[in-house]
Amino acid sequence: MKMIENVKRRHFLIGSAGTMAAAAVGMPAGAQDSDNPLPDYVSWKDAEDVIVHSKQTLETKRAAQGSELITPSTELYIRNNLPAPSDDIVANRDAWEIEIDGVANPGTMTVGDMKTLAVETVVCVLQCSGNGRAFFDHETSGTQWSVGAAGNVVWTGVPVRAVIDAMGGAAEGANFLTGTGGEEIPEGVPKETIQVERSVPMAAMDHAILAWEMNGEPLPLAHGGPLRLVIPGYYGVNNVKYLKRLALTEGESPNKIQQTSYRVRPVGVKGDPSQPSMYEMSVKSWITGPLMDAATGKVQIHGVAMGGVSDLEKVEVSIDGGQSWAEAQFLGPDLGPYAWRPFVMITDLAEGTHTLASRATAKDGLSQPETFPPNERGYGNNGWRVHAVDVTVS
Amino acid sequence: MKMIENVKRRHFLIGSAGTMAAAAVGMPAGAQDSDNPLPDYVSWKDAEDVIVHSKQTLETKRAAQGSELITPSTELYIRNNLPAPSDDIVANRDAWEIEIDGVANPGTMTVGDMKTLAVETVVCVLQCSGNGRAFFDHETSGTQWSVGAAGNVVWTGVPVRAVIDAMGGAAEGANFLTGTGGEEIPEGVPKETIQVERSVPMAAMDHAILAWEMNGEPLPLAHGGPLRLVIPGYYGVNNVKYLKRLALTEGESPNKIQQTSYRVRPVGVKGDPSQPSMYEMSVKSWITGPLMDAATGKVQIHGVAMGGVSDLEKVEVSIDGGQSWAEAQFLGPDLGPYAWRPFVMITDLAEGTHTLASRATAKDGLSQPETFPPNERGYGNNGWRVHAVDVTVS
Repeated sequence: MKMIENVKRRHFLIGSAGTMAAAAVGMPAGAQDSDNPLPDYVSWKDAEDVIVHSKQTLETKRAAQGSELITPSTELYIRNNLPAPSDDIVANRDAWEIEIDGVANPGTMTVGDMKTLAVETVVCVLQCSGNGRAFFDHETSGTQWSVGAAGNVVWTGVPVRAVIDAMGGAAEGANFLTGTGGEEIPEGVPKETIQVERSVPMAAMDHAILAWEMNGEPLPLAHGGPLRLVIPGYYGVNNVKYLKRLALTEGESPNKIQQTSYRVRPVGVKGDPSQPSMYEMSVKSWITGPLMDAATGKVQIHGVAMGGVSDLEKVEVSIDGGQSWAEAQFLGPDLGPYAWRPFVMITDLAEGTHTLASRATAKDGLSQPETFPPNERGYGNNGWRVHAVDVTVS
Repeated sequence: MKMIENVKRRHFLIGSAGTMAAAAVGMPAGAQDSDNPLPDYVSWKDAEDVIVHSKQTLETKRAAQGSELITPSTELYIRNNLPAPSDDIVANRDAWEIEIDGVANPGTMTVGDMKTLAVETVVCVLQCSGNGRAFFDHETSGTQWSVGAAGNVVWTGVPVRAVIDAMGGAAEGANFLTGTGGEEIPEGVPKETIQVERSVPMAAMDHAILAWEMNGEPLPLAHGGPLRLVIPGYYGVNNVKYLKRLALTEGESPNKIQQTSYRVRPVGVKGDPSQPSMYEMSVKSWITGPLMDAATGKVQIHGVAMGGVSDLEKVEVSIDGGQSWAEAQFLGPDLGPYAWRPFVMITDLAEGTHTLASRATAKDGLSQPETFPPNERGYGNNGWRVHAVDVTVS
């Protein structure tokens, strides 16, 4: 956060100087921030590395992902279901209070309290359920993400298990871990229709943490600070931001975001609770370079690969659209089963257009399919064919 | 680098607006950058996270190191023996040419050529030989580093071995790997007196890489871009910046920086080639928080630890100045034998002043000594006692 606050400070300085300058030349002061195309709450992000889909959806550029071991916070994607709360809530982070329910001794606990219990650091992929949506042939509503609604993030916080234990353990009949976000619900709107509240199976608790730090800095507001529920291996939506309530529950949240949204179903079918929920991520990879052009001769083809909830076994790369494959090399240390691994293959590319594809296989034996089936909301696309890139070599 | 360039761009904008504003209020335009205390070539660093010792020596603040798995580029320390070259040299990175000597087929190779050979990513501690110098009791010349002339960095580049192989392998009689830096030598100055040229034993070649990327971005000029020799496990000085020549040599470089500088010897004794050179780093750790005050009750004590050239076995923490010790917990994945590991211990601290110390032990069996012997230049200090911090709990 120090870095981020400092960039913010610089941004503020730009604003101030801009105001002075604007006043001096008779320009309206409102024009002071026109050099920054980013929404205010993420003004500290690197505008050159992201695509702004909307105020609440920013995508990391494919080229920027490169062969990064960790995604810098300044380029990590943003997908908020509701506007972020006021930054008042990160003014005193340790005072942020969370209601804990469905335990032997229900009550509240502050972030400060949690810091006295236990601490753990985990590296995992944060990825939106709709990452890859843009690659489906059928029409889908929702942000048309390519590959950039994903990043590899270092989280530090308290294991959920330690919090539950401190409250006397799980109450009888608990089947789900339910987290509720602290976004403001406008008056008059039934909270079930928009409130971010997700339930995940109890088994997810084994690895879940409540994170107060991201990439070694206090968790930025835009990413859910002061406290975020992080479920390694699970899609982004389950990682509830501004966590204000954590409960072990018998059933799933009654809210729309749990009952009918984030459900995988055939095209044209409405969401309902009988359909699979977007929980565990699947094995996936994509090329991050080259993306358009390359010179003839030896070229570094690189990308990133993830096992979903399993360690990776291998990544194969094809330069002929999937007719033949060769194993790529992983780059750098293995950061665990929930993290991604950059990969590289150095190969000769002759003149002409080549379709570069990658296909990851996890240690649990699962591989990326050639094509992932179309589904109503365009979730979970890990088909290798549509993730391929055409590169012209001259 | 995208991030860095963008911050630069913002900084430039501050400058422009500042000039406008200054002109408007009749201030001299030269004052435009007064909000940034950093030298120009590192103006993209986070001023809040570093201590500026001089134009060529910036230290990371102890508190900023926190429990970071990787040190962000914006807070990594700077120690340059000579002023950095003009940034013209990073305008076309792939064209940067390196002379390769002491091989069967001597010649030149560009960074672009190297990228076609092989690629590897390694995480390792970058640490100045004089880190910890400020903690010696005796007077020492040189920058008075505390703990912040160190960081944990992700490097990507080509293994030195692959380059040597591509040039036909080592010539007869090679005993050292010698790297020469591309800093400009002012006319009239004998180059042996100031040129950065270091020789390391051939064994170091097993892990050495020529790095073009740092923390997932093109290597910044301030850290040696376009190409830096990185010798994992070796002190910073051996990691030659702006590498312009790489040679396998029979003897060590005749330059002062090799012959008499960076030699460990008793206080009052002059440097000479018979004394040990600052090569391999040793096992070390230090507390990064709390540093001054804490509240009574349970407190998170955290820090970073490194094994030198070995994996870490354990880190112990003492809250009573070394009378008793308890094992701390490592945080996050192990990034390899040359990387540091953040650690944490949650413990009760009663009212009063406590001396918090940490002591690392590597898998090779070596531990930090209580006191590291004084030496003329204040090199290699890894004594646990002087790295301890006094914290007042109320």
